[in-house]
Amino acid sequence: MERALINQAVNFINQEIWVWGWIHKIRKLGGIVFIILRDYSGFIQGVIENQTDLSEELSIGTVVKLKGEVVKEERAVQGIELKIKEIKIQSRVVEDYPLQINKKKISANLDTLLDYRSVSLRYPQISAIFKIQAQIAKLFREYLITQNFTEIFTPKIVCAGAEGGSNIFKVEYFDKTAYLAQSPQFYKQIMVGVFERVFEVGSVFRAEQHNTARHLNEYVSLDYEMGFIENHLDIMRLENNLLIYMLKELKKTSQEEFKFFEMEIPFVPEEIPHLKLREAQSILEKNYHKTCLGEPDLDPEDERLICQYSKEKYNSEFIFITHFPSDKRPFYTMDDSEDPGYTKSFDLLFRGLEITTGGQRINRYEDYLTKMKKLRMNPDNFNFYLEAFKYGMPPHGGLAIGLERITARMLGLANIREASLFPRDINRLIP
Amino acid sequence: MERALINQAVNFINQEIWVWGWIHKIRKLGGIVFIILRDYSGFIQGVIENQTDLSEELSIGTVVKLKGEVVKEERAVQGIELKIKEIKIQSRVVEDYPLQINKKKISANLDTLLDYRSVSLRYPQISAIFKIQAQIAKLFREYLITQNFTEIFTPKIVCAGAEGGSNIFKVEYFDKTAYLAQSPQFYKQIMVGVFERVFEVGSVFRAEQHNTARHLNEYVSLDYEMGFIENHLDIMRLENNLLIYMLKELKKTSQEEFKFFEMEIPFVPEEIPHLKLREAQSILEKNYHKTCLGEPDLDPEDERLICQYSKEKYNSEFIFITHFPSDKRPFYTMDDSEDPGYTKSFDLLFRGLEITTGGQRINRYEDYLTKMKKLRMNPDNFNFYLEAFKYGMPPHGGLAIGLERITARMLGLANIREASLFPRDINRLIP
Repeated sequence: MERALINQAVNFINQEIWVWGWIHKIRKLGGIVFIILRDYSGFIQGVIENQTDLSEELSIGTVVKLKGEVVKEERAVQGIELKIKEIKIQSRVVEDYPLQINKKKISANLDTLLDYRSVSLRYPQISAIFKIQAQIAKLFREYLITQNFTEIFTPKIVCAGAEGGSNIFKVEYFDKTAYLAQSPQFYKQIMVGVFERVFEVGSVFRAEQHNTARHLNEYVSLDYEMGFIENHLDIMRLENNLLIYMLKELKKTSQEEFKFFEMEIPFVPEEIPHLKLREAQSILEKNYHKTCLGEPDLDPEDERLICQYSKEKYNSEFIFITHFPSDKRPFYTMDDSEDPGYTKSFDLLFRGLEITTGGQRINRYEDYLTKMKKLRMNPDNFNFYLEAFKYGMPPHGGLAIGLERITARMLGLANIREASLFPRDINRLIP
Repeated sequence: MERALINQAVNFINQEIWVWGWIHKIRKLGGIVFIILRDYSGFIQGVIENQTDLSEELSIGTVVKLKGEVVKEERAVQGIELKIKEIKIQSRVVEDYPLQINKKKISANLDTLLDYRSVSLRYPQISAIFKIQAQIAKLFREYLITQNFTEIFTPKIVCAGAEGGSNIFKVEYFDKTAYLAQSPQFYKQIMVGVFERVFEVGSVFRAEQHNTARHLNEYVSLDYEMGFIENHLDIMRLENNLLIYMLKELKKTSQEEFKFFEMEIPFVPEEIPHLKLREAQSILEKNYHKTCLGEPDLDPEDERLICQYSKEKYNSEFIFITHFPSDKRPFYTMDDSEDPGYTKSFDLLFRGLEITTGGQRINRYEDYLTKMKKLRMNPDNFNFYLEAFKYGMPPHGGLAIGLERITARMLGLANIREASLFPRDINRLIP
């Protein structure tokens, strides 16, 4: 009883096969029972005629092995159906499903979907999100490896926060207090001194108090860091090429999954436009009557509007904003000597949301000491990090892409939680 | 001033090129200065003749761009050297290196190497460990993707430990207490209900009090979990094939890095031998005069001896031990109905060390309730997990490979810390 994957059934017309999976839908019409079976490769319609006892113990979710003859049936998916001859039950359900996972439209609200996560993930249109997410992570790594980056694994339990501020979780580490890494920033910079070009795909943790549709308290960060750059534009150019590669490949591999979302797979221009923060703010004031010039960052509405502008003016759903003010970026950010008070930093906005933060970093030991003195930070707390700069570090920089954010924006999901298998927020620690 | 990578220099004989990197070694002989330059692709010898002022500001670690003519020189690495014409200093060192990173033999002890991690990682024989580690992680994912596994990202901040016991870290999660995931166990099982076959490469955390050469408090776990298995042998067979693939590929990609370790890239037999725990213990008693029959696990010496036995008897450096006693494995482990009191569980030992734990899991809701009652666990604390089994779950199982452990064993490293970029142990939270 060799198994056939459902998406291979079409190769067995007029033959008997075994398929294994979950009952996804079941419908009785007079003496005939129609079922839809799901496995990880797809869905197939099965028909039980004249022996309805076969179906007596089946309900949504029952795990079965089915034997049947594959026949042509133009009205069914793939143009085939299975005339069922035998059913072996592998596992029964204990309760009826709390969600109707076989409906085209999801009627439950997000909280319910997250509460019953082991069930809601069985909606085809929800599992598709995570198929695409897996693909995004894979393509991120794949591209960077072609560009001679080395993958690294850095600790998540750390002695100091990299991003400053109070949004950091405390861990009881034996008799010490430790923290959860807000980013792999310090470690990826240290690793530039070793491998020059490094990347990491790993969990990061932010103790954000606010509960918004844009924030998670734990997320997956796609990080890279590269040495011997001229300036921040090199990092942006590499991200531009990375996105071109990712989207080109997604078009090949993930058309089926994208269909659920009525979204175009986005087009990435050869050169994503970039504006200095101040230029963007002037445009927002002039074109959209906002009052924002002089603010240290764009607010959510600004981000939406400048993306709208970028789409109309440059036909790009992506836009880089550069030169955030020096006192609003983390201490390791490189100032632009040609634009005093501003940094060689950038955000990438995509469909109204920031999905990347990056920039050139300070690379000289003395410059760190000067910067820390200015910010009244104690360098002694960062010895393990500063050490790397004592012993020769080239000009370098990097960025981080939020995996859930890029997934959500690509698929037009309204809430970032939809792009996390088991999201963590201020109220949600379960499931 | 286009850059040439050092490992490409050999294609530019009698031409001038620019190479960029770190001064790895510098030696003055009369009027001649020899330097070795390192970039991420390799090492090259450079020579400065008749203009020693060029080298005045150079020391170990200085970051430079060098212009020179590539000439044949049989005595140098790659059979070439660079006649240096011009040097641009990118970044100076502030202090002399605390370690002699250009020596063939590392004389510093492990604590010193870990204290000065940003420097010690610049030893070629240390960075090679992490080149290989990156490759192992890549090959793990690559193989599983060919076997239709989907990558998942599960939370590391959790509400309950998966592995039981007290070795779990507490996190202050706003006004709640949360924990750091000991493994993605619960979540990967839930995901079998969605994708049938899943894998994750992620950080896990164990608050082990003991400070041994085999334990880390944070490590990278290579996990997979698969549905519709017959029994634990299916999981072992897949790991067997995974290892064959990994080692075959490592032979192609990582010969250079392996050379540092005087270790053979291990051979993986078509069928890795397996013994029940009791069989292994009988052998240990008979052949090695151990007293261990009836113990619930092998001790470190047992593991070394049974690996020695496997090598001699089966010519395999790998050996599976199966059927650990039911009361010593986590609650989710499937009992073997044909061998009461024992489980369908296994460890994989490699060169004297356990590198994998796995097994078939319980897949029926009622069986979980029965097992938890027996162990006096409260099922209410695990609702989010047990839910998945209410709604139909096929027979399934999986395993976890410790990335640092497999790396260490493959390279013959005596201490697991050597296979972690920035290891965490009871005393070490920095760097």
